[in-house]
Amino acid sequence: MDDFIFGTLATDEKRLAYLRAAWEGVTHRQSREPRAPLPGQAFRLTLTTGPAYSGERAWVYWTTDGSDPAGEHGVATNGFAAPMTLTSAEWNVLVWDYIRHFEVTVPGQPDGTVLRYRLSAESPLAGEVFADGGSYYACYIVDALTHGHPPEWAQDAVVYHIFVDRFFPGSGREWAQPVDPTGFYGGTLRGVLEKMDYLSELGVSVLYLSPLFPSPSHHGYDSTELFEVEPRLGTKADLRALLDETHRRGMHAILDFVPNHISNQHPLFIQAASDPLSPYHDWFTFGHWPDRYETFFGVRTLPQFNLRYPPARNYMLDVARYWLEFGVDGYRVDYAIGPSPDFWADFRRVTLSTNPNCWTFGEVVDPPDVQRAFEGGLDGCLDFILLEALRQSFAFGRWSPVRLAAFLNRHEAYFPSTFSRPSFLDNHDMNRFLWAANGDVRRLKLAALCQFSLVGPPIIYYGTEVGLSQERDVRQADFGRPHESRLPMLWGSQQKTMLFDYYQHLIALRRAHPALRRGAREVLFADSSALAFTRGEDSDQVATALNLSTDPVAVRLLRPFGQVLLATSPDCSSQSTTGETLITLPPLGGLMLGR
Amino acid sequence: MDDFIFGTLATDEKRLAYLRAAWEGVTHRQSREPRAPLPGQAFRLTLTTGPAYSGERAWVYWTTDGSDPAGEHGVATNGFAAPMTLTSAEWNVLVWDYIRHFEVTVPGQPDGTVLRYRLSAESPLAGEVFADGGSYYACYIVDALTHGHPPEWAQDAVVYHIFVDRFFPGSGREWAQPVDPTGFYGGTLRGVLEKMDYLSELGVSVLYLSPLFPSPSHHGYDSTELFEVEPRLGTKADLRALLDETHRRGMHAILDFVPNHISNQHPLFIQAASDPLSPYHDWFTFGHWPDRYETFFGVRTLPQFNLRYPPARNYMLDVARYWLEFGVDGYRVDYAIGPSPDFWADFRRVTLSTNPNCWTFGEVVDPPDVQRAFEGGLDGCLDFILLEALRQSFAFGRWSPVRLAAFLNRHEAYFPSTFSRPSFLDNHDMNRFLWAANGDVRRLKLAALCQFSLVGPPIIYYGTEVGLSQERDVRQADFGRPHESRLPMLWGSQQKTMLFDYYQHLIALRRAHPALRRGAREVLFADSSALAFTRGEDSDQVATALNLSTDPVAVRLLRPFGQVLLATSPDCSSQSTTGETLITLPPLGGLMLGR
Repeated sequence: MDDFIFGTLATDEKRLAYLRAAWEGVTHRQSREPRAPLPGQAFRLTLTTGPAYSGERAWVYWTTDGSDPAGEHGVATNGFAAPMTLTSAEWNVLVWDYIRHFEVTVPGQPDGTVLRYRLSAESPLAGEVFADGGSYYACYIVDALTHGHPPEWAQDAVVYHIFVDRFFPGSGREWAQPVDPTGFYGGTLRGVLEKMDYLSELGVSVLYLSPLFPSPSHHGYDSTELFEVEPRLGTKADLRALLDETHRRGMHAILDFVPNHISNQHPLFIQAASDPLSPYHDWFTFGHWPDRYETFFGVRTLPQFNLRYPPARNYMLDVARYWLEFGVDGYRVDYAIGPSPDFWADFRRVTLSTNPNCWTFGEVVDPPDVQRAFEGGLDGCLDFILLEALRQSFAFGRWSPVRLAAFLNRHEAYFPSTFSRPSFLDNHDMNRFLWAANGDVRRLKLAALCQFSLVGPPIIYYGTEVGLSQERDVRQADFGRPHESRLPMLWGSQQKTMLFDYYQHLIALRRAHPALRRGAREVLFADSSALAFTRGEDSDQVATALNLSTDPVAVRLLRPFGQVLLATSPDCSSQSTTGETLITLPPLGGLMLGR
Repeated sequence: MDDFIFGTLATDEKRLAYLRAAWEGVTHRQSREPRAPLPGQAFRLTLTTGPAYSGERAWVYWTTDGSDPAGEHGVATNGFAAPMTLTSAEWNVLVWDYIRHFEVTVPGQPDGTVLRYRLSAESPLAGEVFADGGSYYACYIVDALTHGHPPEWAQDAVVYHIFVDRFFPGSGREWAQPVDPTGFYGGTLRGVLEKMDYLSELGVSVLYLSPLFPSPSHHGYDSTELFEVEPRLGTKADLRALLDETHRRGMHAILDFVPNHISNQHPLFIQAASDPLSPYHDWFTFGHWPDRYETFFGVRTLPQFNLRYPPARNYMLDVARYWLEFGVDGYRVDYAIGPSPDFWADFRRVTLSTNPNCWTFGEVVDPPDVQRAFEGGLDGCLDFILLEALRQSFAFGRWSPVRLAAFLNRHEAYFPSTFSRPSFLDNHDMNRFLWAANGDVRRLKLAALCQFSLVGPPIIYYGTEVGLSQERDVRQADFGRPHESRLPMLWGSQQKTMLFDYYQHLIALRRAHPALRRGAREVLFADSSALAFTRGEDSDQVATALNLSTDPVAVRLLRPFGQVLLATSPDCSSQSTTGETLITLPPLGGLMLGR
């Protein structure tokens, strides 16, 4: 865990606090089955109550007319209510007391309903206590199958993640020379457009662009205007041109959508913070106006948007609708755990009705249950859990192939196949993989081979394919942000062309073999050195073999395979006889075989 | 938790290690439903597998002919086998990985069957791994209802716990004057017999005697002979006379049974440790003969008895049978978690068939799930969890009445009503309650009032009823054992007669009111100062009101009650009008009301 991806859960102390908060309180955390109910389908909600909630009483309140559910002691003042049933109790060793489980079944609802709900339990001292700190939940009852989500193009995608300021200046300009790495390097939308041939040659099918809206920062996550393009990066016309070119090439483009917070320089916040009677006061959550307000992780320049306040919620939904109408094909949703959980039903309704073919996935740096709970709100989540496994296995060499194989089986089984889990080896918030792997390109190639052999649509962080790395650990950065992983893209002779060729080959194979994108996976071999598995069946089957050790290995697979589709090094070889295949792999080598 | 009762689970670190050992491994821990299956009744076993056990495969093996179940990969070589079904998976934050749950249903068995079973799951590296470190489990399939367990007299019991060496010398002798408190004070069985009038006057119905068998120690938990009486304490004739007198008075007597270990001075162990070819070698578990062997908590003088070895098991079962046939009425079972879990089915079979009316309960200083798992093996367990709650609430004043009320509700709901839970305020292994309460007799009286108002048969540790306390904290003892709580009984003018009168009254009320022993309990009132609840209904109903605060309180109960049955102090009062009762209680005062 010293990669510090899950920083909020990195120590036993933090994990205990996290679990105790759940076990000691009244906790739902979207424990709902099915999580995305279809029209007419009843669903079951569960609740856990800690030792302070001694009663045998718990309730659910819900509405189906868009209003907030309200009521007390099981009597709805708005909408419906039902008692929950005590189903079991257990002693919790960490809380050192009993905790209880309640259940209720909510009746099925018609297509298109947004069902909002809250749960509560009785406490002898505090009275009725609402689950999860008073959270509001919602599900959008919609026949996801007819909407075909995630869309086909998403499951087939190879995504290229562009940090716009750092990709290419374009228009004949050189990189700017900022005083420090928090400054602007001068990348633009036009620069991206000029590099479309490069991206086509690489073979990616989806561009994911970092935040484009006006913002005082190089990263753009602190927007001062949500319906415009940051002038440094270009104009709406530039974006239109880029989208048109993307679509002309049969590719798609998605934006970074940041619903949780805006810049404190945004006019909405400036007004709210300067006039106590401002109509925008409730668009934020002031503890003590104007000094204290809810923020993103305590950063005062990033006030949290109050998405429980209908005008603010509608405003943010308008943003989501606007850019889809403008022509983007979906969103990577920043900090999706931030907004009130019921926001996502509305987000789902707006995005699906604006562009039924859009793709949305969340950034949720939390355990798998928290990620999976977004089912029905988003098409999926960035696969941070896999990210950690791949880095532990391939960058640090800390996981044995046996552990990785076991993890992959459990991980894939945990998520429904309709839940999109884009895979990645690194991003703009952590050390680049190549840096973490101490510059060992073999580790990167092997990790990418594994990544591209798994079901999740792979994301390539710009520059990875040509050996872009960094100079210091991001946690040693002087500027409070992981700038080291956002260095300018390498162009021309700076690029490692052999690595580019490898990625190009890998992408082409993924695009040529539906088995790699949709085929069933079966582990053929795992020991303390190597791992081998297949994707797909019959005529379209691909086998991947990975040597995670620093010694050469020979792996015998009890099936015949055909040609070598790709190898990380010329020292990899494969021989098939009638019944089996003998694979020889150099240290940290791997290959992909066809039938 | 600084009372240090649950010392092995006293810190977060220890609790985490305890939970991780369960979650990371292949764990059953007697998760069986029903725990005590009746003849013909199928039962469900569950298993949890940690991240190292990646397969979807787990099995159960069982026999019904008394032999040990054996087999591999789901094929029984002895008895039966069945595959378990993967039912669910979840992310475990503390393990930081997925864990899985398996289930299987085992078919019902005929009356009198001892069904032995083991569970296993597949691990890719270690192969097949048996649950809980290879434990063997068993259940004795018997119609417990026809056996009427626990017996009526047990549920009606008021138990008096006698530490024999410290109770009364008898035969006109004075206390001995040992050099240090680990020595012998000279209490005898004849001394107990001579004090039967005292015990009858107090009103208790069951004597629980500390270990009586030959032993080099004052406590007797390290026996050198299991079929005799320690000569210091008396003879078999003395024990016979004591049992006869006990039964003549309509009382019962139970012994301390220690199946887990014996003294290293026991001839069996001496033989096993002196001759490598001894037939008793396997009666113990030698890691490296003769130096290393399994012990009770690493104490070399207490070698663990290998109850998995049939001759040793039968020998220990003979001990249990012998003393029941001799005339004792049951056992308090020392360290019941020590023996292999399958031992208890045999113990159950032997004890029920020898004396169907006997009472057995275990000393299990573990969480409630571990205690409850003894259902079907023992009649119940000493209620260590309640002990902690009563000490926290009444001795230390750390729990609010609200918390205590909530705890009692959850605690009582967790155990089946047929599971015997003898209650106690202290014992020979911890600070006496009165010492823990800083000598405040009000706290002791209030705690006892609560204890005697709950369903569990109360145990009085000798001397508590006359104000026996101690001089130092047991953890500061010089001699490695909690001798301070084992000081000689007070007799004559040393006794606090007012406290004796109070206990006498309390016991008489318990014996007079079936409601206190069997009635339903209902909380009428709980706030941050006081707690009130009823036992029983209609004509036989008793209300108990307890002021846990150090201020006077008035408690209004919205029901009429009648006479004051008992009050901890003359300052307690009660006034009933038609619809309600107003109770006034001094600091740390309480009372009991009838209808």
